Amino acid sequence: MAAHDRAATGLQHAIIQTLRREGPQSRADLARRLGVNRNNLADPLAALTAAGFVHEPNLAASTGGRKARLVELNARAGFIAAVDLGATSLDAAVTDLQLHILAERSEPVDVAQGPTLMLERATQMVRALLADLGLTPDRLLGVGMGVPGPVDYRLGRTVSPPIMPGWNQFPIKDHLAEAFGCPAYVDNDVNIMALGEQFAGLGRGAESFIFVKLGTGIGAGIVLGGRIYRGSDGCAGDIGHMAVDGSDVLCRCGNVGCLEALAGGPGIARRARLAAEAGRAPRVASFLQEHDELTSVDVGHLAAQGDPGAVEVIRETGRLVGRVMASLVNVLNPSLVVIGGGVAQIGDVLLASIREAVYRRSLPLATRHLRIERSAVEPRAGVLGAAVMALDEVLSAEGLERSLRA
Amino acid sequence: MAAHDRAATGLQHAIIQTLRREGPQSRADLARRLGVNRNNLADPLAALTAAGFVHEPNLAASTGGRKARLVELNARAGFIAAVDLGATSLDAAVTDLQLHILAERSEPVDVAQGPTLMLERATQMVRALLADLGLTPDRLLGVGMGVPGPVDYRLGRTVSPPIMPGWNQFPIKDHLAEAFGCPAYVDNDVNIMALGEQFAGLGRGAESFIFVKLGTGIGAGIVLGGRIYRGSDGCAGDIGHMAVDGSDVLCRCGNVGCLEALAGGPGIARRARLAAEAGRAPRVASFLQEHDELTSVDVGHLAAQGDPGAVEVIRETGRLVGRVMASLVNVLNPSLVVIGGGVAQIGDVLLASIREAVYRRSLPLATRHLRIERSAVEPRAGVLGAAVMALDEVLSAEGLERSLRA
Repeated sequence: MAAHDRAATGLQHAIIQTLRREGPQSRADLARRLGVNRNNLADPLAALTAAGFVHEPNLAASTGGRKARLVELNARAGFIAAVDLGATSLDAAVTDLQLHILAERSEPVDVAQGPTLMLERATQMVRALLADLGLTPDRLLGVGMGVPGPVDYRLGRTVSPPIMPGWNQFPIKDHLAEAFGCPAYVDNDVNIMALGEQFAGLGRGAESFIFVKLGTGIGAGIVLGGRIYRGSDGCAGDIGHMAVDGSDVLCRCGNVGCLEALAGGPGIARRARLAAEAGRAPRVASFLQEHDELTSVDVGHLAAQGDPGAVEVIRETGRLVGRVMASLVNVLNPSLVVIGGGVAQIGDVLLASIREAVYRRSLPLATRHLRIERSAVEPRAGVLGAAVMALDEVLSAEGLERSLRA
Repeated sequence: MAAHDRAATGLQHAIIQTLRREGPQSRADLARRLGVNRNNLADPLAALTAAGFVHEPNLAASTGGRKARLVELNARAGFIAAVDLGATSLDAAVTDLQLHILAERSEPVDVAQGPTLMLERATQMVRALLADLGLTPDRLLGVGMGVPGPVDYRLGRTVSPPIMPGWNQFPIKDHLAEAFGCPAYVDNDVNIMALGEQFAGLGRGAESFIFVKLGTGIGAGIVLGGRIYRGSDGCAGDIGHMAVDGSDVLCRCGNVGCLEALAGGPGIARRARLAAEAGRAPRVASFLQEHDELTSVDVGHLAAQGDPGAVEVIRETGRLVGRVMASLVNVLNPSLVVIGGGVAQIGDVLLASIREAVYRRSLPLATRHLRIERSAVEPRAGVLGAAVMALDEVLSAEGLERSLRA
């Protein structure tokens, strides 16, 4: 590519970024914002318009009688597919380029059924969503997916995921790109939840914050300086397998005493069953007589109804999570920790216990300005973040160059 | 300042940074490296030469008979004073602009004697070092200082330091700047130790690593993406006051069960005394009959001589430190943890116990590429880092602008 072309692509990218950040604006404003002469915008805008990324719809005549035309990102220039795979659930959505969710679906799954089957179901879900919207798959500009384990982001593969048997080193990114004929991007589910919160939730405008997912698995997505921090092997924030003192419960990862084994969804249900068997949780006991299954959210409901055993299980869960979260707080000194995931739906009793444990075990200085809040975008943090990740890549300088060349 | 001046300062700064990073080079090489025409270097080099920051000494005639002249940073253009205040020691050094330590001194102190007395002693030490070198204080371009507590870096003040009674909100930066008539910079002691290790030790070229100081106090300096990570209140990495389960030992910070209270220098000595009193540490007992004082390093020596009680105390120290360090590793997934500070001098038995505890309690993925090593620049990590911090500021774009205007 000639230097001239590279400069042109640079300006095109700057235009797109400005329109994403600041919304529609006149050519004059855009030129001023970018510090270039208005005439220099003609060529890059023509290229972006031809590719469909921007348009300048005619608006009603302004007071002066002249038509006011604004350059804006064409939200329908293409679409993004977003997939959030959890240990027991699969969520998918299709968004436009302004990240409005146009359609979404959710299914219960078991991630242990392995990558081929799971990715087949994810692909079918996305195709069904596109069909619902009357869109053909060639309208997709990118696919983003979150999975419940550590990911080598560049390669788009899972790396020794403790709770995803059969997935180690599976080329998810390549598989999805092949299935949809467009670029695909894969990350750890908690990282994409953090991205979703950063885009539309409590993390908006925050330099740094931590998203803690409490679900079947437990993990933390760390945003530092506006970006996901991954660590040297991609497993930064993997707090679910930190050891909780005095526990001998076997974890799915093969170790004993992991936080996740006690305070993840199945761990909560198991402890509530034990409380019922021991006669300390009468409401849990009657619930179990009527239902085959008991989820952590059920335990939360029974606690809210006053079952003493269920209350104790939820409080203990908060203490366990809070102790590990205090380590996060002492190490990173964040000003905001956001809590999401299915188990977080249990609500205030759990949140209060978590807060209490964090404040008790953290340095006073580290908690002086610390907020611990429930996610503002759940249950959509995952799919939203997967869409953010994919769109950021599609509209990156590299992504644009690829699109405009095509 | 006119746009033209700003551009000139920018080029001056780029010249200085290139010379710092890559060493002496010809004007032609420098121009090539900076992507400018050689003629554009004349003015900024003249200004930098006039201010004394660079020079072009005449070298011996090269083979062609023409004199080879290289532009280089003038190491003696000025000097940096570096001070490292610990809980019980005060180290000071004077360096040139290539960060060679020209003179250094060390004194035992008690940080609890308060800021006025401590800063007076630090100032006297630096003046004495300058006098030893035949330098007047006006040759100082900057002063850097580390203190054993959280610091608001911008203001240069301590913020609620747990082990520095009387220091809260003390304007250290202003005090030093006033005393020496040059800019001063203050940070937490562990952060500057990390800078020292990054400049000349195992952290050289590392994108990210953690420096753990084991001394009277315990803390971690976190380098992410090449820079010190401070957190929202400046107390990121303050692991010394993380709670150790089952301990009821009172810490100087006022809390109970802090890591530092058990595994800091005084905690180690106290536990060894208890072992001697209980008859489990015969060599410690005879040492105490002959000496008034027992330090953690003495305990290390007695362990090396085979005292079973001393060995157990050192091993337990390693286990305690390792457990907390495992949290650091699980949260941040670093590839390198460097251990320094006075207690780290105990050596291999301690290091082996730390490693064992970290590997046992961390995720396998997080320890796959993890190195845990003793510092390569101790006992000078602190003063070296304080000098690095001050020099980085003095030679920053802002610092240069100030110097060249003066």
